[in-house]
Amino acid sequence: MEAIDLRHHLNTLSVSRCPSPLKDIMRYMAIDGMVSLAGGLPHPSLFPFVDLEANVYSPNVDLHSTASRELIHLTIHKDNKNDGQAVDLATSLQYSSSTGLPWLLNYTHEFTRTVFRPAYKNFEVLLNEGNTDGWSKVVNLLCEAGDFILLEKQTYPSAQALWIPMGCSGVPIEMDAEGMRSDALEDVLRSWDLDHPGAKRPHVLYTIPTGQNPTGCTMSARRKQEIYTICVKYDIIIVEDDPYYFLQFDEYHFGKGKQNGHALAPYDESSFLSSLERTFLSFDTEGRVIRLDTFSKTLSPGNRLGWFTCNPVFTERLLRATEVVTQTPSGWSQAILSELLRSWGISGYLRWLSGLKREYAVRRNWACDAIGEAFDIKTGTSDEGLVVYGKGTKVRLFSFVPPRAGMFLWCKLYLEENQDFLAVKAEAGDEDPETAFERKLWKELVDEKVLLTPGSYYTAWQGREKTSIATSGRDCGVVFFRIAFSMTTKEDMSLGIQRMAQVLCRSWGLT
Amino acid sequence: MEAIDLRHHLNTLSVSRCPSPLKDIMRYMAIDGMVSLAGGLPHPSLFPFVDLEANVYSPNVDLHSTASRELIHLTIHKDNKNDGQAVDLATSLQYSSSTGLPWLLNYTHEFTRTVFRPAYKNFEVLLNEGNTDGWSKVVNLLCEAGDFILLEKQTYPSAQALWIPMGCSGVPIEMDAEGMRSDALEDVLRSWDLDHPGAKRPHVLYTIPTGQNPTGCTMSARRKQEIYTICVKYDIIIVEDDPYYFLQFDEYHFGKGKQNGHALAPYDESSFLSSLERTFLSFDTEGRVIRLDTFSKTLSPGNRLGWFTCNPVFTERLLRATEVVTQTPSGWSQAILSELLRSWGISGYLRWLSGLKREYAVRRNWACDAIGEAFDIKTGTSDEGLVVYGKGTKVRLFSFVPPRAGMFLWCKLYLEENQDFLAVKAEAGDEDPETAFERKLWKELVDEKVLLTPGSYYTAWQGREKTSIATSGRDCGVVFFRIAFSMTTKEDMSLGIQRMAQVLCRSWGLT
Repeated sequence: MEAIDLRHHLNTLSVSRCPSPLKDIMRYMAIDGMVSLAGGLPHPSLFPFVDLEANVYSPNVDLHSTASRELIHLTIHKDNKNDGQAVDLATSLQYSSSTGLPWLLNYTHEFTRTVFRPAYKNFEVLLNEGNTDGWSKVVNLLCEAGDFILLEKQTYPSAQALWIPMGCSGVPIEMDAEGMRSDALEDVLRSWDLDHPGAKRPHVLYTIPTGQNPTGCTMSARRKQEIYTICVKYDIIIVEDDPYYFLQFDEYHFGKGKQNGHALAPYDESSFLSSLERTFLSFDTEGRVIRLDTFSKTLSPGNRLGWFTCNPVFTERLLRATEVVTQTPSGWSQAILSELLRSWGISGYLRWLSGLKREYAVRRNWACDAIGEAFDIKTGTSDEGLVVYGKGTKVRLFSFVPPRAGMFLWCKLYLEENQDFLAVKAEAGDEDPETAFERKLWKELVDEKVLLTPGSYYTAWQGREKTSIATSGRDCGVVFFRIAFSMTTKEDMSLGIQRMAQVLCRSWGLT
Repeated sequence: MEAIDLRHHLNTLSVSRCPSPLKDIMRYMAIDGMVSLAGGLPHPSLFPFVDLEANVYSPNVDLHSTASRELIHLTIHKDNKNDGQAVDLATSLQYSSSTGLPWLLNYTHEFTRTVFRPAYKNFEVLLNEGNTDGWSKVVNLLCEAGDFILLEKQTYPSAQALWIPMGCSGVPIEMDAEGMRSDALEDVLRSWDLDHPGAKRPHVLYTIPTGQNPTGCTMSARRKQEIYTICVKYDIIIVEDDPYYFLQFDEYHFGKGKQNGHALAPYDESSFLSSLERTFLSFDTEGRVIRLDTFSKTLSPGNRLGWFTCNPVFTERLLRATEVVTQTPSGWSQAILSELLRSWGISGYLRWLSGLKREYAVRRNWACDAIGEAFDIKTGTSDEGLVVYGKGTKVRLFSFVPPRAGMFLWCKLYLEENQDFLAVKAEAGDEDPETAFERKLWKELVDEKVLLTPGSYYTAWQGREKTSIATSGRDCGVVFFRIAFSMTTKEDMSLGIQRMAQVLCRSWGLT
């Protein structure tokens, strides 16, 4: 099955791009015996770099053990010595095709084919500088000023900060424990013309399906299938921003935290792969998904390296943009990751990812366990997840769904029994009392030396006139805070949650 | 002296950008004793990289000698071992400020201050991913769709390929041997409203002042002063795209080629610095120059690393764009260049640049010498430079100004005595005969296995309706070809020029 023709989604800017005539001429350089006086390239003998060596972990190391770890030694010479290396410095540090270095491009294509399994045949990959760059190029591929963009009700602020100044607006879709709700999406689209007379129906849906930032929600395969079907019906391009895809954990079982996440079943590649939710790509029979993958969360953000997977019409236009916007990702990043991944292979990289997922699961457990220790917990509805009470009290403070992926735990605070909130509410002028209270509580947390991010940062942007709770459709009487568990030691997590408990108990008048 | 207020030059997009609230929260992380559960960063213990080593040249090596070269060994550990290293991998591979790593940012600031010498006090620098990224961000900072942009009559096509699809148009300014002519610039601006009724006057001037691509022209300090004064008068922002700045050569003396360029005067930093033309920045009392510097030509293109120098209002808006567009240059590039430049120091880097300039001067000489051998040459007017005749004939074929900088030699071919051109002219339909002839001659060159770039690639874009010679204001009876001398050995240059001579002589009916 091949991608259908979706070029009517391209915006004016991307339709208008032309290939550079200079790039065209490059292929003549390859003619045997040609003396090329065409390329304005610096001579590689005049690069000051002679060779590079790096020590990296073997993909099999036990990241949880403090024992010394097996290392692999990578060497990158200036010139290719034909010792099987993927790249040499003379090539990777020179100007090169904007598609990315061939070895790495092939690797990402093969990885995508075998791991994400697009449902159509002629998908293509193109390197970019990570998902920030990827999303920026996608918006500049598809969106016109003033467009509406479908997205999760709570979403990643930097993704919005790109298109807000373009005059675009978000269309927030209600979420449940599995992220964006398909029924809510269909409702919005079905009644679009009624609700937004004269406004162009959205044609781009932005989602973080795995370990969503900020809510930590993960979409099931079934939910993805439902959303995909709706997007076919309404002719919508899905942008699958999936940096946390490989950080999918076992479920958290309250009270048994210490056992799970680090249960050492022997590694098995097919079990690992089948433990991962299917991607949107795997449902994509038409080529209407643009998937954004990155090495940022798996091999470090400083690589600034990721890739698009999408239909050939879109990759061709993205390539034209890449040529004039960023040219290529860093040659150092490409060379070092090429050698690392050549040495590891696809199986080795998957092995590494399974180890990584285990480590972040342990950190997820530290966070959940710490909450269990500092508060009283009961199991709520599936959308509530765990409901958290002041220790030894029946005062409901917040609830959270233990994340099945990613780096974030999302707390929904219930303010109805909080006298301080009622006081704030009585005093609040034009401002929503929730907003005022969130700021006050955040400040109290900071004063107690625990830093969370306020939930309001993640509100879908619907334009300047729709920022209040009433106009934006948010819930009254609740506020949210995001806890990131990726960077903290067990001890600090415990300490941070204890401090949070103190502040909450004080705020709710429980001490 | 401080920059004047130039914020009225910002476009709607860049005025509308907001800082991310998440970046704001970062400063609270630094509070002593704070438990941060705020940052969604991957944990550096889970980066697979342990350390990195690189062998690089000492800045003092004689690049022209084949003797073995002194190496410097760089080591970058994961964690900072306080052995004076500029960076560590745990930091450089983590998410970090979009300004760039502090050490490197300070280095480029100090380098800019001491070498380029901005004429105002509060200039700032900001890292980018090289001049392609730099120019893209500048256009998105200043230009609206449909704007007119002042530029050299012949210019770099990829710089145009960025803004052509935005519906912008170039305003080509006539050039002489020193590049853009100041009198021609003033003429265009003075009569703008008359010549372009209703069109907004251009407020951005794009120039490659040193070793211009494609013409190889280099602006004198005097010319820059004249242009700067005009830009003050008409309130224009100058974008100084200067990748070849340090490749400024001694003059080429025809017939003495073998002696110059490699005359080994002992290196002296202040002589080297005073051999360089002053920058636009050095005349910039108002902060209306945005200078683009890159390590691409000096330390290899694959670094994808460069920097803006401009006024603080512009750097702040460029930083907001960087946050959502590219985030930061590659951490590998930043770390490796930081260590290289720390080890070299500013003086070492300048020493390296002086060696580099000498090597490209030698290559320039190879090209000029080869032309002298394959053709007869006479000195023409200063704008013609050297006039080239078919060997043993009085038939003028082309002229070129021996470049004083950069990587390019620009040939202006005179077609009045070319019978083949007259035949093409007789047959040409709607197409300009020059364009048809250029394509035919280029094909003949390719068939003889010498690859040049056709001059028409570099024509300033004035819109779809102004592409013919008559409408675009180009000269009749001439075509141009660009010879790049950076990548070719002496032998190949000689062979390439001989082949070119054969093709030209055949075309002009001289054999």
